Amino acid sequence: MTKTFEHLLSERALGMRENVIREILKVVSQPGMISLAGGIPAPETFPIEELYRINETVLDRYGAVALQYDRTEGFTPFLEALVGYLAQKGISADAANLLVFNGSQSVLDTLGKILITPGDVIALESPSYLGAISAFSSYLPEYVSVETDDDGIVPASLERVLDSTPVKFIYLVTTFQNPTGRTLSVERRREVAAIIKAKNALVIEDDPYGDLRYRGQPVPPLQTFAPENVVYVSTLSKVFAPGLRLGFCVAPPLIREWLYRAKQGADLHTNTYAQALATEFICGGFIERQVPKIIDLYRPRQEAMLAALERHLPSDFRWIEPDGGMFIWVEGPPDVDAEQIYWRAVEQKVAFVPGKYFYIRPEDGLPTMRLNFTRVDEATIETAIASLGRVIRGD
Amino acid sequence: MTKTFEHLLSERALGMRENVIREILKVVSQPGMISLAGGIPAPETFPIEELYRINETVLDRYGAVALQYDRTEGFTPFLEALVGYLAQKGISADAANLLVFNGSQSVLDTLGKILITPGDVIALESPSYLGAISAFSSYLPEYVSVETDDDGIVPASLERVLDSTPVKFIYLVTTFQNPTGRTLSVERRREVAAIIKAKNALVIEDDPYGDLRYRGQPVPPLQTFAPENVVYVSTLSKVFAPGLRLGFCVAPPLIREWLYRAKQGADLHTNTYAQALATEFICGGFIERQVPKIIDLYRPRQEAMLAALERHLPSDFRWIEPDGGMFIWVEGPPDVDAEQIYWRAVEQKVAFVPGKYFYIRPEDGLPTMRLNFTRVDEATIETAIASLGRVIRGD
Repeated sequence: MTKTFEHLLSERALGMRENVIREILKVVSQPGMISLAGGIPAPETFPIEELYRINETVLDRYGAVALQYDRTEGFTPFLEALVGYLAQKGISADAANLLVFNGSQSVLDTLGKILITPGDVIALESPSYLGAISAFSSYLPEYVSVETDDDGIVPASLERVLDSTPVKFIYLVTTFQNPTGRTLSVERRREVAAIIKAKNALVIEDDPYGDLRYRGQPVPPLQTFAPENVVYVSTLSKVFAPGLRLGFCVAPPLIREWLYRAKQGADLHTNTYAQALATEFICGGFIERQVPKIIDLYRPRQEAMLAALERHLPSDFRWIEPDGGMFIWVEGPPDVDAEQIYWRAVEQKVAFVPGKYFYIRPEDGLPTMRLNFTRVDEATIETAIASLGRVIRGD
Repeated sequence: MTKTFEHLLSERALGMRENVIREILKVVSQPGMISLAGGIPAPETFPIEELYRINETVLDRYGAVALQYDRTEGFTPFLEALVGYLAQKGISADAANLLVFNGSQSVLDTLGKILITPGDVIALESPSYLGAISAFSSYLPEYVSVETDDDGIVPASLERVLDSTPVKFIYLVTTFQNPTGRTLSVERRREVAAIIKAKNALVIEDDPYGDLRYRGQPVPPLQTFAPENVVYVSTLSKVFAPGLRLGFCVAPPLIREWLYRAKQGADLHTNTYAQALATEFICGGFIERQVPKIIDLYRPRQEAMLAALERHLPSDFRWIEPDGGMFIWVEGPPDVDAEQIYWRAVEQKVAFVPGKYFYIRPEDGLPTMRLNFTRVDEATIETAIASLGRVIRGD
């Protein structure tokens, strides 16, 4: 690569380290590889047949409007459809609280843009979603970790962090977290809400997986306990189609106003046609049939993985059994190096993500692994976990 | 509005002034208003009938792939289609030089992100495209103006600016510029190319309007004269549909690599489905029939506006007669205040954009106006310009 123009790069470009995970995952596309690595929906969940019809409805109903420049806030019928979709989750928003973005990644990036001055501190769960860290890091923040256990972040630890550090915001994936699958319990949500209200702190609640519940009762979003202190971020990527890049957020008024301004300068508005498709997907009742279909596909895959782990992994390995989402988080004994396991597993044609990549501190999470169960069928999961077990035991 | 969280805003948020133009253009949506204000394609140019067919082709041909997460660079068949589209403009790129973004606005924003450290200097034509200024300003640059005349920027002025100031990049709309409609002449392109090569300077060449040529010979992009020093930015918004938000760029390798990294963190990738639609729009031969149709609609509108200006405006007003694009730039004598004309014209139900908003220095461009001719038919243009003439003459 020519080095021309290297001197022109901004200071912030230095914050954009190449996605390390991408390097080690290059092998995933090798022929015959069973990938438990990604976080990608199964393509058989996409409503392709329905889309022939939805496209016609959109062109009939909206015509040129679906192809024209649109408002920065979002396509009005889609905003109205989202109000109803969010109400089912317990979130009372009106269209004026909402903003639509090019995927939830773009919400996170824009929040970083309006909130982070270099050196500002962001509080994260440990481990945390890598994509969020990647979005925020280009604005050169510092990070501080909040302790977590099987019920999500520990309120006392959050309180200590907020008392000792001026934190710009706290970023949480509250339900079926990526990478751990953990859900912040209702009790904890109440406690976290009380803390952030008392300290006038801001939480970014990222909820891409909440609809993918395989058992147990739905938990109301943290936003419902502290609507003035939470930016609720979600996406249609896991329940409709990620390729349409439709993310959205519900935000307190000042944050929403600045997100709006930043988005206007950054990309004018989100794809009108995709928003029109999603409007018909929601209002035409397709989503209500689609989500149970997705759950029916993913639940047995998750059960197969949990059963296979039980059968094939040594007894000193433990894992979380989440009520939903896309991942199982496995933790070996302290002396295990999951990246070594990764390279040996890859030789046996099984890939996953070594968990250390989800931690801020490079010394953390060495014995952990994130396993995705949504892309491969039950028999393949059994094969993959059996191989993984052999690799771990050194057979 | 509650003031909660104002203390959390980043320093860069202060760079995002509310779009001033939006305030004065609020009246444009009043009933009965004839708007010459926007820069929006005529909705009757959108290939709606064709899209019924293109949607089916996309679902048949790509199926789940068009709905899935995709590469950050862009949808491979779309990148390949763009290679052919760009070759017709004289740009020799291969897919590995290209990147697809959510509209060209997002290319400009991402260029700002990777290149601008607060205080860096950007060189602009004067007047310049407001959306670009809005994208760059959130990264807190300073601006310096390069002199322009009817052939575009003046090479000697560019040279003086580059000699006296460390400029991060020069931003130019080279063909049918927004707001002036001016085209940088071929001779000037050669001179500008020689200057930026000699000084190892970087130009961002924004070319949204190049296909909308109503007379005269096409001019090769500046990029073709200095491919290693130019980021060529364009869009399908003016020849397909702006609501699909499809912008793209051809960039020197290092710039492309950093744009790629920044985009990965900012929004993962551009809407796959929209890219698949555009692929079929280009490869199915639709674009070759579409562009002449658009030109056949816009050319008589432009001619009608030029003729009406001749009939109705006082003889001390002058205007540029561009060979294409979407705008006519009108300049009154020095004592004219076009914003005063604007408010009186609005009372007569005619709106346009006072030209001063396209200048960096608030004292510049007071007697100028930008008139759009693509949204209204010839008879309405005649009515609007006749009204404008009466307002200017104070009848």
